Amino acid sequence: MRRIHASQLPAHLGRSVRLAGWVHRRRLLKSVAFLVVRDATGLGQAVVTDPAAREAVARLTEETVVEVVGTATGNPAAPGGVELTEPSLRVLGEPAVPPPFDLYRPTLNASLPTQLDHAALALRHPRRAAALRAGAAAVAGFRATLDGAGFVEVHTPKLVAAATESGADVFPVGYFGRSAYLAQSPQFYKQLLVGVFERVYEVGPAFRAEPHDTARHLAQFTSLDAELGFIDDHRDVMAVLRDVLAGMLGAVADRAAGSLATLGGSVPDVPAELPAVDFPQALAIAGADPGALDLDPAAERAVGQWAAREHGCDFVFVTGYPMAKRPFYTHPDPARPAYSNSFDLLFRGVELVTGGQRLHRYPDYRAALAAAGAPLDPYRPYVEAFRHGMPPHGGFAIGLERFVARLVGAGNVREVTAFPRDRNRLTP
Amino acid sequence: MRRIHASQLPAHLGRSVRLAGWVHRRRLLKSVAFLVVRDATGLGQAVVTDPAAREAVARLTEETVVEVVGTATGNPAAPGGVELTEPSLRVLGEPAVPPPFDLYRPTLNASLPTQLDHAALALRHPRRAAALRAGAAAVAGFRATLDGAGFVEVHTPKLVAAATESGADVFPVGYFGRSAYLAQSPQFYKQLLVGVFERVYEVGPAFRAEPHDTARHLAQFTSLDAELGFIDDHRDVMAVLRDVLAGMLGAVADRAAGSLATLGGSVPDVPAELPAVDFPQALAIAGADPGALDLDPAAERAVGQWAAREHGCDFVFVTGYPMAKRPFYTHPDPARPAYSNSFDLLFRGVELVTGGQRLHRYPDYRAALAAAGAPLDPYRPYVEAFRHGMPPHGGFAIGLERFVARLVGAGNVREVTAFPRDRNRLTP
Repeated sequence: MRRIHASQLPAHLGRSVRLAGWVHRRRLLKSVAFLVVRDATGLGQAVVTDPAAREAVARLTEETVVEVVGTATGNPAAPGGVELTEPSLRVLGEPAVPPPFDLYRPTLNASLPTQLDHAALALRHPRRAAALRAGAAAVAGFRATLDGAGFVEVHTPKLVAAATESGADVFPVGYFGRSAYLAQSPQFYKQLLVGVFERVYEVGPAFRAEPHDTARHLAQFTSLDAELGFIDDHRDVMAVLRDVLAGMLGAVADRAAGSLATLGGSVPDVPAELPAVDFPQALAIAGADPGALDLDPAAERAVGQWAAREHGCDFVFVTGYPMAKRPFYTHPDPARPAYSNSFDLLFRGVELVTGGQRLHRYPDYRAALAAAGAPLDPYRPYVEAFRHGMPPHGGFAIGLERFVARLVGAGNVREVTAFPRDRNRLTP
Repeated sequence: MRRIHASQLPAHLGRSVRLAGWVHRRRLLKSVAFLVVRDATGLGQAVVTDPAAREAVARLTEETVVEVVGTATGNPAAPGGVELTEPSLRVLGEPAVPPPFDLYRPTLNASLPTQLDHAALALRHPRRAAALRAGAAAVAGFRATLDGAGFVEVHTPKLVAAATESGADVFPVGYFGRSAYLAQSPQFYKQLLVGVFERVYEVGPAFRAEPHDTARHLAQFTSLDAELGFIDDHRDVMAVLRDVLAGMLGAVADRAAGSLATLGGSVPDVPAELPAVDFPQALAIAGADPGALDLDPAAERAVGQWAAREHGCDFVFVTGYPMAKRPFYTHPDPARPAYSNSFDLLFRGVELVTGGQRLHRYPDYRAALAAAGAPLDPYRPYVEAFRHGMPPHGGFAIGLERFVARLVGAGNVREVTAFPRDRNRLTP
């Protein structure tokens, strides 16, 4: 008999079926026992009345992998309205050691460190699994949108000779007797590949040796990167980003509707044009020091609240950040060179995306490195390529874990990451 | 005027259009000049007769980024049958330094090391770019097939505390004052996530500190990993792999037809059932020592030739490798415990995929580690999870670069990798 999933039970009413999954919960009443089995699609219940079978259920432990054959019978009180009656039971593998927390409760009542220590088990909780499913759907939407816009997917080196974003937060790697670093971003490579494909994207790990232990930083995160050539300025990049966000959220609504329901989340609206404020205006909205060179988290929250209030929108662009706080490859605003053709996108008051126009002329790179006091040599293989013809271009990077955390209302990116890495955590 | 791509020229016959791209080639005749511009979609030619414009073309260098406005005019001798007449020309950026090799010749006449030293330029050659496009299409087909079969995409740690595949070929990482390694595969994590989603896949970098410099090994490669639970044995995994290969090749045919044409390649047929030989039979076919524990490259070639000859198939499974040569997590064949429920898939005589059934019982892991003389401690976070209920499961990993190299007939995986990494190469 072919195995069916719990979600398929209603389609098999009256027939003998085979379920397989994990023992999610047992309820042992006086003359009857209920066995709830969890599989990839949800929960299925078996009703056990035979005394010997009841005894077998009593001996089971939560998370044991079992197979149940029985008759699919209507019962409005059962999950999905159908349960298995007169079931026969087979243990696959061996009896499980019960997990250190109850996976069958609606909310996982364990501290985050405990969950992370036992990640392989905690992720089995439907809410934790749902967040990862929402992330998978979002990534599918990212790719589908960019595929449709003529982008080519690329895979770039994660082992590099020079830091891309800043010299401090890199992981050193022993590389055949030499020193290498883990890539903090695919920044240089995606730019170089604009010279090949005009438009490229990459979904991959990025590594930051973050010295701080915060709710929104990870030592490894999944970076959704895009870069495109033949732009006029950063506004062309923002238009692509807007479509990408709409595609990601559309895919979550389409492909992860059940997960969203589990989490009680909803997909925010993405208007045809997202609200945007220029950097000095953002400072004013936040009541911050007009001389500030960046937005701190409180200022980001204030700008996010402003966007919700004034535009009814969960997203807001902040454009024109001071050059002083942007990486050396950032293109200045030709009209006011102390400011940049760059942007951040805030999602519900937290920075989600950084992007902008990049330098594309070789002399500009030389000048920018000199101005930053950075030596040319480590950047030579990257910078030299700009001598050979590069179009005006720009791009952006979305942090997947931040996106999902904001979407599902998780307070810490670790809640939506399968096996997070940070300064204190290298296992499991 | 909105920019069009070279491939769109025929649809704009008779109209004024704007092209943009790289100066691919110039031909300066006595009274006329031809300017061939390359963009993401191909080549577009402009015919220049005006003496001043001809002079401007003469001053251009290859790879300079330009914009050309002119009238789309039919000419059977032009690429795509259409060329731009009475063009006006604008340089975007600055004049390019010509590359150290001619990108306009049908084949890139530069040694592989020279190409790799100037990867950002060499990849602009249509044949090099086409191989990467074929790879992108193959990955899209991998994902689409698995999405359709109920798999969930995951992202797992690349920074790990213990080697997964063997102790020797790992890159050490300085991790906040501790020692970590780069993951050689997502093996443990994809297995643990079978406990969450039943079926998972990941596309991501894998790292091997390969001591040898061969045509088929890289220090970083793109691993296409899948793992599925509730299997009977490795044959269920092979069936999924067969469908995945069909999906990958179908996507290459659909999405990268132009790239295949550029490369002169063709997509092999994937029959409903791929030929399979058991390990001892494979040794016999290859005329190898019947006591051998593995197939060497010559034996793989022989088995590949046998499959082509006997089955007309570019693919062949070799099943039942000796346990002695498989990793400790491999499930033995219950009928003959010295052999395993594992397989390799050969593609045109080269190992492309390794896979099989894994152990799923905690005592089996303990016994396997003890038998291998490996300490439990580094593997504890992984092995302990098997105490909490895991179904019979298995999976496979496809090396993307090997797949593309075999598909397009490249002799070295470096020819189909954007910026390869090996013991001698950390840049560009």
